[in-house]
Formats: sequence, structure tokens, C-alpha cells
Amino acid sequence: MTGFSLNQATTKHWPLPDLVAGCVTAGVRAVGLWREEVQAYGVDKASGLMRDAGLTVSSLCRGGFFHDADWYDDNRRAIEEAAALGTDTLILVSGGLPGSSRDIDGARRHVGEAIGALVPDARAAGVRLAIEPLHPMFCADRCVVATLGQALELAAPYPSEVVGVCVDTYHLWWDDQIWPTIAEAGAAGRIAAFQLADWITPLPEGVLLGRGMPGTGCIDLCRFAGAVRAAGYDGWTEVEVFHEQVWARPGAAVLAEAYEGYRAATADV
Amino acid sequence: MTGFSLNQATTKHWPLPDLVAGCVTAGVRAVGLWREEVQAYGVDKASGLMRDAGLTVSSLCRGGFFHDADWYDDNRRAIEEAAALGTDTLILVSGGLPGSSRDIDGARRHVGEAIGALVPDARAAGVRLAIEPLHPMFCADRCVVATLGQALELAAPYPSEVVGVCVDTYHLWWDDQIWPTIAEAGAAGRIAAFQLADWITPLPEGVLLGRGMPGTGCIDLCRFAGAVRAAGYDGWTEVEVFHEQVWARPGAAVLAEAYEGYRAATADV
Repeated sequence: MTGFSLNQATTKHWPLPDLVAGCVTAGVRAVGLWREEVQAYGVDKASGLMRDAGLTVSSLCRGGFFHDADWYDDNRRAIEEAAALGTDTLILVSGGLPGSSRDIDGARRHVGEAIGALVPDARAAGVRLAIEPLHPMFCADRCVVATLGQALELAAPYPSEVVGVCVDTYHLWWDDQIWPTIAEAGAAGRIAAFQLADWITPLPEGVLLGRGMPGTGCIDLCRFAGAVRAAGYDGWTEVEVFHEQVWARPGAAVLAEAYEGYRAATADV
Repeated sequence: MTGFSLNQATTKHWPLPDLVAGCVTAGVRAVGLWREEVQAYGVDKASGLMRDAGLTVSSLCRGGFFHDADWYDDNRRAIEEAAALGTDTLILVSGGLPGSSRDIDGARRHVGEAIGALVPDARAAGVRLAIEPLHPMFCADRCVVATLGQALELAAPYPSEVVGVCVDTYHLWWDDQIWPTIAEAGAAGRIAAFQLADWITPLPEGVLLGRGMPGTGCIDLCRFAGAVRAAGYDGWTEVEVFHEQVWARPGAAVLAEAYEGYRAATADV
């Protein structure tokens, strides 16, 4: 299962030791982790669990949320946690508009400044910041970075080994500029993470938990996998799906389906 | 109330004669109409009602939905209805991906071909086609045209007096390219319609009925009104909101609030 990584959010209710055991049984070699779950379990304990099982932590989700008052301290903690878990990639979701603000340009400027402020810590910890553009439907409340082009602009002032971007099919598939922008990201050595999820309708209330398992929706996932590969990305491919109906199923079954979706998307890559 | 137009969808359950009387009482001079409501009332009867009241029909919503099998005949009927209502603007919502297709490029090519096929009819009828980009969250099932830049590309092959674009704040506010693109649209004489709605969260299930009344959300509507004006647009400004809670209120109260939102957004324009 080279290349495949199970993002923990896909099997949200699977306890971490069970998830690790399930991955080992299935021959999965990498897992993407989330801070809340890792903190609840204990960072050092989680780190030991992964190491003992021989699992790579492909990424830690997430830093960012720069609209929060304590963004600086919280992101420094996130960098420390990433380093403790032995992952080289911290996913950053920028955050939305603060309070009742209508100043989207100001919010975007603040994101750029915040990333700049974190670069020394990230470099010192050996952790790469992966700026993740979210779908524009999250622009107000979760992420003012809405396109891969914007993420690349934010990353540009910093060395590519310290600041990269995350390519998530769910957030980017609608963008008519996505193919040249992926090529550009690759040429600049900026693709730090690649995540698979599919687009299904109707969207649920709040839209956060509307992601589909790879293969169940309308995104040409094969084209995405081919594009990031052609752009030089040879890292892990995480399957990351948030959906109540997926969470309600047994972890091992979801893992098997996630891997099948990955395999189908990458068969020709 | 020069410049303001009430889009009928904002007061969906207000019967057309009551809406017309309410607009006359309030001094409103223009109304944007929807095909379903007009068809239910009778196109000729609606046309007479508007004419007798001295109301301009600022636009008719909507043609498009080119993923439907009968798109050609249906859009020719829409052009005829627009002409019968005396409006010079037919809003086009392109439609999404047909069936279980994942071929977004193919769907977008088809939209371009479909618009080309309608140009002779539109020109003959004196009706301008206004390509409306919808928010990317509608890309799969309603509109593969997700940015103003894409709408301009689709319009480019045709004369600007026959094919223009619709600038709707709700769909476009997240786009970091929106300001130069509005300027470009204006310079090309392509802005055919301008619609105001605000972005509020959380989005409801299905996301269609999540629009906020102007002033209740996070969009810098003043900047939009200023931008389209600076780009040379001097047509109507429609307030177009779909929301169950708005629809549940008396039409006259919603009209008054819509006008206040318009006034606040355009105070400095």
C-alpha cells in the first residue's frame, strides 16, 4: 500500500489504538492525524504508538485559524506537536473573517503575516507548513484562502522546504485554473500534501460533513492524482472524508473502502 | 428609488398582483421576474400587469440549465418570454454536470456551444443573455460557471450587446480576482445585471436557501456597488435573496428591508 495514508478524520470514532492496529493488519503504512484526537490520547503516547507500529505520520491537521486571538501560541504548540509525532507536515487552515468583519483583504493580509511569524519556529522544528485552500463555501468562517493560486502566493515569500501547499480534491475540483496551478505548484516544489475526497450532493446543513468517499461523487480523482504526480509530488496520498454516515460504520470497513478509492484514483499513475 | 429593483424571488410567496401593487405603493420602479411564477400567472397577463403599473422588468430568471435534454427549446421559450415581458435581460444559469458525469471540461464546452446556438434568437428578440456565475458550491448540480472570469470567457466570442454577464455579490465575494475582473467586464461592456445578497452562516441543508438580506452578512456590498459603477454599469440593482425565513414574512416588510439594504450599499455610489 505504498503511497496511501488514512487520514484519521475519515474514521473519526475509531479509537487511536484500534486505528493503528487496523492499519497494521491492512498493511497501511501511514496515517494523517488530528490535533484534538491526539491531544485527548496524549501526544507522547500517540507518538510512541505510531513508532512502535512502524507507521509514518503523513501530516498533522491542523494549525491556522489565524482569526483566533491566541493564534500565535496555538500554532507554536501545533508545530511542537507535529515535531513530537515525527511528521514533517503541519496542515494550515487559515481561518475566516474575525467577528463581524467584512474586510476579506485585511483577513488575507493577516494570514500572510501570521505564516511569516511562524516560519522560524517551523524551520527550527523541521516541520513544513502546508497552506490548505478550502472550498469557497468556507471562506467566511473557516478559511479565507479559497484557491490554490492564493495559497501559492502566500507561500511564495518563504523557502519551499518550510512553506508548501496542500492539494485537496474536494476543495479545488471546481477551479478552472486548477491544472496549470498544480503544475506551477509542483515546479516551485510547493506541493506538501495531497488529500482525496469526493464531491456529493446535496450538501448537509453547515456543509462541513458533506465530503464523499473517493469514487462516490463527481470529481475526476484520477486526473488529480495524475496531475500532482506529473508535477513531481511523490509523497503520501491521504483519504480524508468527513461524513456522519461514514463515521457510523466500522473503522476497518471504511479503511478498506478508502484504500479501494485511492487505488482506483491512482491506478494509472 | 432610482436604480433599485425587487427580484421576485426575495418575496417568493407574494402573489404577483400584490407584489406589483406593493412596489407601486413603495415607489419602486423595477422588478426582476422568475419564469415559473410568470408562467403560473400567465406571461401575457403578467406583461400587462407590469405595463399597466408602469414597472420595468429588470430581468427574467432564468434560462440555461444546459445539462437538461430539452435545453434548446426551453431556452428559446425563455427568450420569447423575456421579449413578451419587455425585459432586455435574460439571466442564464448554465447548469451542472449531466447525470453521473465527471467531465467538467466537457460540461463547460457544452455551455459555450449552447450559448452560441442561442445568440441568433436572442439578437432577433432584442434580449441580452446574462451569463451568471454561481458560487462554486453549486458547480456540480447547478452551474459549472463558477467565476466571473469564466463567464467573461464564455461571453467573449459574441457581441457585448447580445451576451453579457451577471454580477451577483453572493456568488462572487470570495474571489480574490473579483475587483480586476469586474473592471475588465465593465471595460468590455459586458455587465448586464447586478444583484445584491449577503453571505450568512451556517448554510442550510442543500445550501440554496442560505442567502442573507443585504447588510446581514459579511460581504462588503458597498465595495461591489462602487466597483460595478466605476466599471460603467448604470443599470438596475436587484436585491435577490432566497431564504425560508424571509419568505415567511409579509412582502411589503421584506421589500422595505430590501430597499434599505440597497440604499446602504449604494449610499456612496
